Amino acid sequence: MPEKKKKNMKLRVMPIGGLHEVGKNCTLFEYGDDILIVDCGMTFPDSDMLGIDIVIPDFSYLEENSSKVRGLIITHAHEDHIGGVPYLLQKIQVPIYASRLTLGFIQNKLAEFKIDADLHEIEAGQSFRLGCFRVETLHMTHSVADALAFCIETPVGKVFFTGDFKIDYTPVDGQKIDFARIAEIGDEGVLLMLADSTNAMRRGYTPSEAVVGISLGNIFAGTPHRIIIATFSSNVHRVQKIMDLAKENGRKVAICGRSMENMVRIATELGYLNIPAGTLVDMKQIKNYLDSEVVIITTGTQGEPMSALTRMANNEHRDVKIKPNDVVILSSSPVPGNENAVSGVLNQLMDKGATVLYNDIADTHVSGHACEEELKLMHSLVRPKFFMPLHGEVRHLRRHADIAQSLGMPADNIFIGDNGSILELNGDTAALLSEKITAGAVMVDGIGVGDVGNSVINERKRLSTSGVVVIAATFDEGTKELLYGPELYTRGLVYVKEYGELLDEAKIVLGEVLEHAYEKDLSISEMKDVLKSALKKFIYHKTNREPVILPVITTVY
Amino acid sequence: MPEKKKKNMKLRVMPIGGLHEVGKNCTLFEYGDDILIVDCGMTFPDSDMLGIDIVIPDFSYLEENSSKVRGLIITHAHEDHIGGVPYLLQKIQVPIYASRLTLGFIQNKLAEFKIDADLHEIEAGQSFRLGCFRVETLHMTHSVADALAFCIETPVGKVFFTGDFKIDYTPVDGQKIDFARIAEIGDEGVLLMLADSTNAMRRGYTPSEAVVGISLGNIFAGTPHRIIIATFSSNVHRVQKIMDLAKENGRKVAICGRSMENMVRIATELGYLNIPAGTLVDMKQIKNYLDSEVVIITTGTQGEPMSALTRMANNEHRDVKIKPNDVVILSSSPVPGNENAVSGVLNQLMDKGATVLYNDIADTHVSGHACEEELKLMHSLVRPKFFMPLHGEVRHLRRHADIAQSLGMPADNIFIGDNGSILELNGDTAALLSEKITAGAVMVDGIGVGDVGNSVINERKRLSTSGVVVIAATFDEGTKELLYGPELYTRGLVYVKEYGELLDEAKIVLGEVLEHAYEKDLSISEMKDVLKSALKKFIYHKTNREPVILPVITTVY
Repeated sequence: MPEKKKKNMKLRVMPIGGLHEVGKNCTLFEYGDDILIVDCGMTFPDSDMLGIDIVIPDFSYLEENSSKVRGLIITHAHEDHIGGVPYLLQKIQVPIYASRLTLGFIQNKLAEFKIDADLHEIEAGQSFRLGCFRVETLHMTHSVADALAFCIETPVGKVFFTGDFKIDYTPVDGQKIDFARIAEIGDEGVLLMLADSTNAMRRGYTPSEAVVGISLGNIFAGTPHRIIIATFSSNVHRVQKIMDLAKENGRKVAICGRSMENMVRIATELGYLNIPAGTLVDMKQIKNYLDSEVVIITTGTQGEPMSALTRMANNEHRDVKIKPNDVVILSSSPVPGNENAVSGVLNQLMDKGATVLYNDIADTHVSGHACEEELKLMHSLVRPKFFMPLHGEVRHLRRHADIAQSLGMPADNIFIGDNGSILELNGDTAALLSEKITAGAVMVDGIGVGDVGNSVINERKRLSTSGVVVIAATFDEGTKELLYGPELYTRGLVYVKEYGELLDEAKIVLGEVLEHAYEKDLSISEMKDVLKSALKKFIYHKTNREPVILPVITTVY
Repeated sequence: MPEKKKKNMKLRVMPIGGLHEVGKNCTLFEYGDDILIVDCGMTFPDSDMLGIDIVIPDFSYLEENSSKVRGLIITHAHEDHIGGVPYLLQKIQVPIYASRLTLGFIQNKLAEFKIDADLHEIEAGQSFRLGCFRVETLHMTHSVADALAFCIETPVGKVFFTGDFKIDYTPVDGQKIDFARIAEIGDEGVLLMLADSTNAMRRGYTPSEAVVGISLGNIFAGTPHRIIIATFSSNVHRVQKIMDLAKENGRKVAICGRSMENMVRIATELGYLNIPAGTLVDMKQIKNYLDSEVVIITTGTQGEPMSALTRMANNEHRDVKIKPNDVVILSSSPVPGNENAVSGVLNQLMDKGATVLYNDIADTHVSGHACEEELKLMHSLVRPKFFMPLHGEVRHLRRHADIAQSLGMPADNIFIGDNGSILELNGDTAALLSEKITAGAVMVDGIGVGDVGNSVINERKRLSTSGVVVIAATFDEGTKELLYGPELYTRGLVYVKEYGELLDEAKIVLGEVLEHAYEKDLSISEMKDVLKSALKKFIYHKTNREPVILPVITTVY
């Protein structure tokens, strides 16, 4: 009796990324034999994940249940929503559904990884079925074009998944949010809403992208000097506005930085970016124009060491030397953790005499995420029975829960989960289970995915703090006669050329230790321990440092 | 004719710390055979100064001219003004002049270093002579008690040195700024002002410390739960207010954290902190009181890993376990660079169910530095002929210069210097010289001062990114026969237990390399190079990583 079985089945909602963090968003929906994935992002490593390039979700649960996976649907093209896709596809096969621009960015990424995929273009207002799930797409305004929300009809009820959004009544591309349809979905009854909490701690409203256009327009109109403007390469609307302003003000635009060049190419090909005729020039050509005729659009809003803007600030950029009077605009805000890197770049630009305009002193940027009042509007339209805040650290999630409660939602209907949490729902009830699925942070270092774990990171931390010392010695295996050493090799401990006497003293100490060791007739492995602990003690006493000590004791016949 | 010689002499003002940075403030005044030092601070390392504990100014110029140094005068007791004192005294002898509380903190510091010093207590309103300089002291309001500004009468005119300040019309201790005397000094004529730029980029006014008192009062009155409050240990006034509020609300106070305990002891002994009778209890005793009867004052406002608050958040504190309903107040703001560490602590506290109040959501902190309008007041009272902004990154200094210009000061009379700059003045003119004195950043790592330079830091960076691999091999010196190895030892490269095959493969590659080396009859040192470059290439190919490679090739007879 399949009917009966079905009645006992429940929907499981399982975020495996994006909770208790900002980044690597990935949420699983499971009902019976069907799994639907929403988004598959990456994040940047914490400052203590030394040497790590990026961090992705742990896909173990999907690997174990790969036969159930019906599809991956993507809300929008930001890295924290698409950056994990190539790594997922290295593990399992899954068809991907995304809007045109989002697909363009994903294809570009997959080409770099040389991965083929089953890609499906979807557009706002469309509906399609994936297993037992029926997905309806809705256009959302956000800081990247072509962003979607999803209304997922499941066997136990509708789930409304906002994706990242802000409420922009005057979007650059004129594509507004369909409030009527969202309200209608609310009327039809929504069992669960999952919503973006990134800006839940900010009061009021996020200003429209149009505000930045006005502000940049004033800057363009007001300066006869060269303009260099750094922004997020995914922000197609912002780049469009800069192109339009350049045209209006009789300036040529040059693009600088690989990710910006890629975006301009993809967005132009797909029709999202409309470059005014004769506006774009090659970086090599800018020297043929007056300063008043040039705008350079560049990357490096986060003070990344290798980015174009940082290289300009350091005087290391091949094509651009910062001059006094240059107007440098940061049309961006620092991601938490990057504040100091960004300040460093600003200071260097100013030191070279540039006028630097950034969001603290001019309206050169607006956020792409909904603030408190916008979240209230979304909750008031959708009116879900249950609510799970997504995308944020604990403080963001808690604040978003408080906002929902302030609108009358009972506290028991709100679920603050963690990565790996299982929210189980039937049509009437919902509960966070005590068990969890695997959902850690998988570190990617170069080509290696997951081969650097916490123990390796801890070794790197110790190496980074006080360096390494190798004790080399060679013994005759039979007579235990010392044939070579003890010699010391160090990196990262002290400046050896000037402070080498520390090592000379240490060698004397180790020599004495070896003599005692002979007297006691220690084994080679005991000698290793004795040398290591003697050196550790000596160095700590002399410097208060604790380098990694590697005894390399060899024996020969 | 000494008179003639004197006429040709000029005053030199030379900051050796605190410019193009926030921290390690130290400014030298030199006229003829007299040098006066104002402040001697330390700063915390940048995130890329791996393993470094603190950073101090380079005192080379003072060592070279030690016979000229007449005294060190200190504005106030913050670490960026006194933290370098023990290190300076390890290099040169110099009498120190500071207010009572400041001296108390300095003495505590010198005791730790076991250094005796020639200390002189001064108080606001006093004047004293040091060589050719006559120093007048003025009380300033700031986030530590007993802060001073200095009016330094030099042979070429008066120099007004604000020190760190804010304009607090309602200070907790009732000690106001003597605006009348500052205005009078302005009337007498000031040649040069050097002033705090920390908050030059903030518009308006910094609120009074009294605002925090009101806000904390409301929190205390409104909760029956346990209160844990973290603040800067140097903020005596804040701690006084918390003690008073505890008394009013029938709560006991326990102090947690070594620096807070030290401050409470010193400030109480010197009469700056007045603990209401029966209020203070030992940490061990708090378990004998109800939650509603307890306030814990603690350290850890910056998310420092070993601080009391961080250990509470991590569930690692011996005496305090965070409970749901605990009210945790951060009466502080994160120093730039510490935002993520602080967020991490907040999230963990919230995760344990605590209500966490901090400055973004309640008025639990005010700055100690003057904002734009306060700086305008100071400039308008002092009306100096020349101006050099101090204490700040380039953007703060530039902004402060803009503020001075907005008040009518000619741009040519404003000097934005750098550490090591020499501003030379006679009574009429001032100029920044093209030469500079030595003024770098000296890194302190454990006991070592200056023995870790950029090359060692770069080694630590490489070690931190991809770890280290040692290639060990032993040859017969005569026959060049391989007696041992090639063996590989790694730390921080890959998780060897699970990914050890990488090293096994590498050993095979190195074995092949050695065979070729024999055929070519390479020397030992050539073999070292060949092994190193083969391993480097192999590891990069397999992992995209570039560990430090240390060949340890030994030869025996």
